[in-house]
Amino acid sequence: MILTVTANPALDVSYRVDRLRPGHVHRIGAVFERAGGKGFNVSRVLHDQGVPTRALGPVGGILGDSLRADLLDAGLPHDLLPVAAATRMTIAVVADEATTFNEPGGPLSAFDWSRLHDLVRSYLPRTEVLVCSGSLPLDAPDESYADFVALAAEFGVPTVVDVGGAPLRAAAEAGVAIVKPNAEELAAAVDDDDPVAGARQLRALGAEAVVVSLGADGLLAATPDGEWRATLPEPVAGNPTGAGDAAVAALADSLRRGLTWPERLRLAVTWAGAAVAAPLAGTVDHDVLRALYNQVDVTPLQSPL
Amino acid sequence: MILTVTANPALDVSYRVDRLRPGHVHRIGAVFERAGGKGFNVSRVLHDQGVPTRALGPVGGILGDSLRADLLDAGLPHDLLPVAAATRMTIAVVADEATTFNEPGGPLSAFDWSRLHDLVRSYLPRTEVLVCSGSLPLDAPDESYADFVALAAEFGVPTVVDVGGAPLRAAAEAGVAIVKPNAEELAAAVDDDDPVAGARQLRALGAEAVVVSLGADGLLAATPDGEWRATLPEPVAGNPTGAGDAAVAALADSLRRGLTWPERLRLAVTWAGAAVAAPLAGTVDHDVLRALYNQVDVTPLQSPL
Repeated sequence: MILTVTANPALDVSYRVDRLRPGHVHRIGAVFERAGGKGFNVSRVLHDQGVPTRALGPVGGILGDSLRADLLDAGLPHDLLPVAAATRMTIAVVADEATTFNEPGGPLSAFDWSRLHDLVRSYLPRTEVLVCSGSLPLDAPDESYADFVALAAEFGVPTVVDVGGAPLRAAAEAGVAIVKPNAEELAAAVDDDDPVAGARQLRALGAEAVVVSLGADGLLAATPDGEWRATLPEPVAGNPTGAGDAAVAALADSLRRGLTWPERLRLAVTWAGAAVAAPLAGTVDHDVLRALYNQVDVTPLQSPL
Repeated sequence: MILTVTANPALDVSYRVDRLRPGHVHRIGAVFERAGGKGFNVSRVLHDQGVPTRALGPVGGILGDSLRADLLDAGLPHDLLPVAAATRMTIAVVADEATTFNEPGGPLSAFDWSRLHDLVRSYLPRTEVLVCSGSLPLDAPDESYADFVALAAEFGVPTVVDVGGAPLRAAAEAGVAIVKPNAEELAAAVDDDDPVAGARQLRALGAEAVVVSLGADGLLAATPDGEWRATLPEPVAGNPTGAGDAAVAALADSLRRGLTWPERLRLAVTWAGAAVAAPLAGTVDHDVLRALYNQVDVTPLQSPL
């Protein structure tokens, strides 16, 4: 079973408009709401692929109830921890392009952090891979995900972390199995804009493997078994939101199954592409999934570590 | 006691940003939430001015709870009717100017409309003036406020209505005591862009008095006692949201107190100006209130009815 932790969930609200006109009143026709959070998306993809998973996260306030109802509706196994801080909202105003407004999320008290630890701990004996994904709540210590990495290690459970900046660096220092930043998140962690150099730096800090998502340019991986680029011959058209979460789901599942690194990367690029082809984050297009697998090119990097 | 009915309340959420950049992600610092709705704002101003009032409206869903909590916090006398339709949200993104996204509000069932009528009726024996204010819910009949006008008349209670378009026209036809549209709302009701002509047309339809709010240009009134323009020598700086609600509050209170029309208009312009000077809709600046009263110019229109 793959356990996911979303530290800073949100109710994702989206409005479709013809055009966003700053300074004007927009009358919205239909309103779409969804339990948002990167770990939830990872669990949605795994659940859709028949992989046992459970999604954990802290929720509070009235939006927390709404989020819980959405996960119940989706039939996604979850265990949400009621906390004092009110769950935040994100607003996406969608015209030709999306304009988003992300609330910060209330700070989690030290007491609630320790309760979240207890909840994660209670599942670790049954867990094959732990995934910690998405931003941290306001004022959370940079070590918040690193602490989960250490906790999982006590149970012999490897952890995959998807976060940026200082929390990414802390996870590497805690000996995380895999981190999956995008180029920007990686650069914020290592102060080096070159993703290959950045990935190697995170490995030197203690991360076993670093997989960098490069959008339409695929994935770059620095691992104990070698370094690779995994790409598609041409980009998939669609909505890139959630593609990284699908890649994390594939990495966690292939870690669980003991696949080789080239196989893991092939799967990660396939799932990410199939997520781009599906309209909603946390879903994949099954036809595209089948079509892409054999198209992925996995090539060793020229300059070895 | 002045009873206010807000047919389509909303939870008003506002985000402050440095600049609204279409197509970008905006990370929001602080989130402000407030029970929104024009009738609520009218009651807030009356309550602040020591005038007995009670705010009525239908609320539903999780945001309805939040709205109720805000009215409790504010100490505003209210009686909210729990209904099946979920209360809507409005989002205001505030930079130099405000960009707003107004959800439509769920349709109120015929059963819930009749329950709202029963609730209003239960207060009418204790009511001096009824105020119906703000947009109607999705799919509501144009006669929704007109029906309240007729209901109040059964109890000898005069009604003030603040709405635009077809519901405004219907209220006039029902013999409403005062309507307070802005120029745009009036034009949508009468198909005439000239506010003086439009005001006279509404009176001809059955409205006893028509007060048109013209923003910084003050008020225009067509009444049984004559026609007037009421203006300030110079515009008040600040946030015009809620100025119309303060004018409605003043009109309702001066109707209750039996003031002359020139006195009513002086008060309405004063309260509206004091609302512009206060940062939040539903509040007035008390110093500005005192300063403005003697500055208001009330002049009969040149061409009599």
